[in-house]
Amino acid sequence: MAVIVQKFGGTSLQTTDRINRIADRIIREQEKGTQLVIVVSAMGDATNRLVQLSGEVSSCTNGREMDLLLSTGEQMSSALMALALKEKGAEAIAMTGAQCGIETEYVYGNAKITAIHTERIQQQLDAGKIVVVAGFQGCAGNQEICTLGRGGSDTTAAALAAELKAERCDIFTDVDGVYSADPRYITGTKKHTAIDYDNLLTMAEMGAAVVHPRAVAHAKEHQVPLVVRSSFSDLEGTLVDPSRGSSTSSLVGLTIQKELSYLYLTGKMVKGHLFSEMTDSMGLWRRMIRSGNGEPGLMIKDKDLDQTLTWLNKNKERFGIHTIQHTSGGAAVHMVFRNPEEKRRQGSLMEDSLYWGEAVAIDGYPSVWSVSVSEDQVVDAAQSMYDAFFGHDVQQPNELQEAYGV
Amino acid sequence: MAVIVQKFGGTSLQTTDRINRIADRIIREQEKGTQLVIVVSAMGDATNRLVQLSGEVSSCTNGREMDLLLSTGEQMSSALMALALKEKGAEAIAMTGAQCGIETEYVYGNAKITAIHTERIQQQLDAGKIVVVAGFQGCAGNQEICTLGRGGSDTTAAALAAELKAERCDIFTDVDGVYSADPRYITGTKKHTAIDYDNLLTMAEMGAAVVHPRAVAHAKEHQVPLVVRSSFSDLEGTLVDPSRGSSTSSLVGLTIQKELSYLYLTGKMVKGHLFSEMTDSMGLWRRMIRSGNGEPGLMIKDKDLDQTLTWLNKNKERFGIHTIQHTSGGAAVHMVFRNPEEKRRQGSLMEDSLYWGEAVAIDGYPSVWSVSVSEDQVVDAAQSMYDAFFGHDVQQPNELQEAYGV
Repeated sequence: MAVIVQKFGGTSLQTTDRINRIADRIIREQEKGTQLVIVVSAMGDATNRLVQLSGEVSSCTNGREMDLLLSTGEQMSSALMALALKEKGAEAIAMTGAQCGIETEYVYGNAKITAIHTERIQQQLDAGKIVVVAGFQGCAGNQEICTLGRGGSDTTAAALAAELKAERCDIFTDVDGVYSADPRYITGTKKHTAIDYDNLLTMAEMGAAVVHPRAVAHAKEHQVPLVVRSSFSDLEGTLVDPSRGSSTSSLVGLTIQKELSYLYLTGKMVKGHLFSEMTDSMGLWRRMIRSGNGEPGLMIKDKDLDQTLTWLNKNKERFGIHTIQHTSGGAAVHMVFRNPEEKRRQGSLMEDSLYWGEAVAIDGYPSVWSVSVSEDQVVDAAQSMYDAFFGHDVQQPNELQEAYGV
Repeated sequence: MAVIVQKFGGTSLQTTDRINRIADRIIREQEKGTQLVIVVSAMGDATNRLVQLSGEVSSCTNGREMDLLLSTGEQMSSALMALALKEKGAEAIAMTGAQCGIETEYVYGNAKITAIHTERIQQQLDAGKIVVVAGFQGCAGNQEICTLGRGGSDTTAAALAAELKAERCDIFTDVDGVYSADPRYITGTKKHTAIDYDNLLTMAEMGAAVVHPRAVAHAKEHQVPLVVRSSFSDLEGTLVDPSRGSSTSSLVGLTIQKELSYLYLTGKMVKGHLFSEMTDSMGLWRRMIRSGNGEPGLMIKDKDLDQTLTWLNKNKERFGIHTIQHTSGGAAVHMVFRNPEEKRRQGSLMEDSLYWGEAVAIDGYPSVWSVSVSEDQVVDAAQSMYDAFFGHDVQQPNELQEAYGV
């Protein structure tokens, strides 16, 4: 029997009333004759509340005890969802990450999944049960609870879908698909009816919050079709499928990132080693940049600045770093093109965008054009770039037109 | 180095402010040169809130998913306490029941501890860390989280103290010791400065909420001195110690129980088997009684009535039960004497108490005199019995007089 994995985000589970409605939806899906694995996030802002509580007793923001604390959010919602399903007559069982065999590396706060032992889930599915998994968490070594980072429930879902050879993985969220830009900031955005893994991955890595990058990477690696859709409507959503191309537009979309820090280093450091060692040890989001006068640097998130500076200072001598300069509260607009060729075709567009700020050269993303913009101007800049492109673009996304008449 | 186990109840941990104050207290204790294991309950009414949430999605009140849900409360507070301790400069580590090796039987909602593998705790203690354990929970078989029933954190503490051969086990709670009656209902109560295990156990089994009966049984079995004391003051508390006798008063105290159901059975059942099999399978609090006309019966808690009736009906034929009659919403006053001899000495007192209701003959408690009273009269009845006794009692508890001048 076909297995389908469905992931429900925190907004979909904000209240017990919503949990009840999602439970109805899950039962309707099961009645179609599928084996269902449900992955849940913490209810609403439960994770933020836990972070706030921890802030009242500690300045520590990550590590072993934070993972122990934060993982309770998903454990709670998985138990509640299973209780709701059972109340409605379905057979269901809730499982923590550890209970359903999700093994991670020994990294607190941002662990990668290293293996999934699906025997227990499969047993329960074969016994006719809906398996409700607490997302965002796994287990390392001697029963150590490690979390997968924010958005980690997406990763849980995609990884389980891959391991269970699921027919598809539905990511239910508070938006009804992948848009060409964040509709909260940008007017005139368009929803993709289909997008390919690489484009979605790049969008996600550039900060599009709709699906977690690791989840897309898992889905791509195992060629699991993903569907990004709304918990609150029956709209079709966006299909991420190996058999379908992305939209035919040369610009897939653009993303806005705020609260960025820029670090510039001088010295004789072996950059590759420094950056990869730092990323491995801390699991941070970071991108290589180059300043106007050619100094190598890093773009990181403001919230990671303290940790990064501590690390860099500790490893200063070893890498021969002379000086570290940093600025915080920066922002950037990232234009994500369908491929490097499409990016090259849009040269004048990129030149125009430099009106708003400096271009950021980023290694490893040949189809992305990034412009650093001051935080107070970033929304205007993004809207302007967006309009400039979609005003010039002759190839509207056809599938979108067909589906929604936009 | 001496190990001390300290348990802090929910009221002591109601807010992060209180967690911070308790953390200071713990650090002061460590500075005396002891190895500390801290057992924590869920914060304030966290458990009740979780029960309420579950009630919004399910009519189920126990079982596997409830345990998964409820155990998050203690996991949260253990993480927060360890974070608070570390923030204040102490070395600390939080552990779930499973992580610190607490094995239980496979019973959800009311599991007994079957073994504790203390290697990991001992390692952490030897490394100079304060070990903060999530109370109320353990792990059965294949990573199944089983809770120990309400008050289970006491049991966690006493069992850990026994297994670690602790010098003593402090039970910090919202009252400053074991009283001769519940001061919330009865005026003129007295605090015991010392009490022996059996008397405290009987008080606890008769409903005195101050320490969980299983905790006392664990402490007794391994002869671990318990101290019941207040989290909010430095008052001495009540010492439960094998080397010290109980108070010299013939009446240790009295307890009030409400929300009781009385079940009367007719038929040819083998009572012993029936009752022990029922208790084993459901882990309920129950006591044998006998009606006015000699029919055998059970006193159980109202909340367990449905479950008990279901069990009895299912096993009706096997035990040859003909009829089952039940009434709910009952109450009882239990007079706990120091020993059966002291009880016998107070015959007239017991006779007087029958003004309020019927005597309940209870097997296995030769030092307890119980009177069933209607719920609306139970407080008046208890006060009257209390006054009658302490009015007649010539032997005031001497230690109490010395310590507090009462």
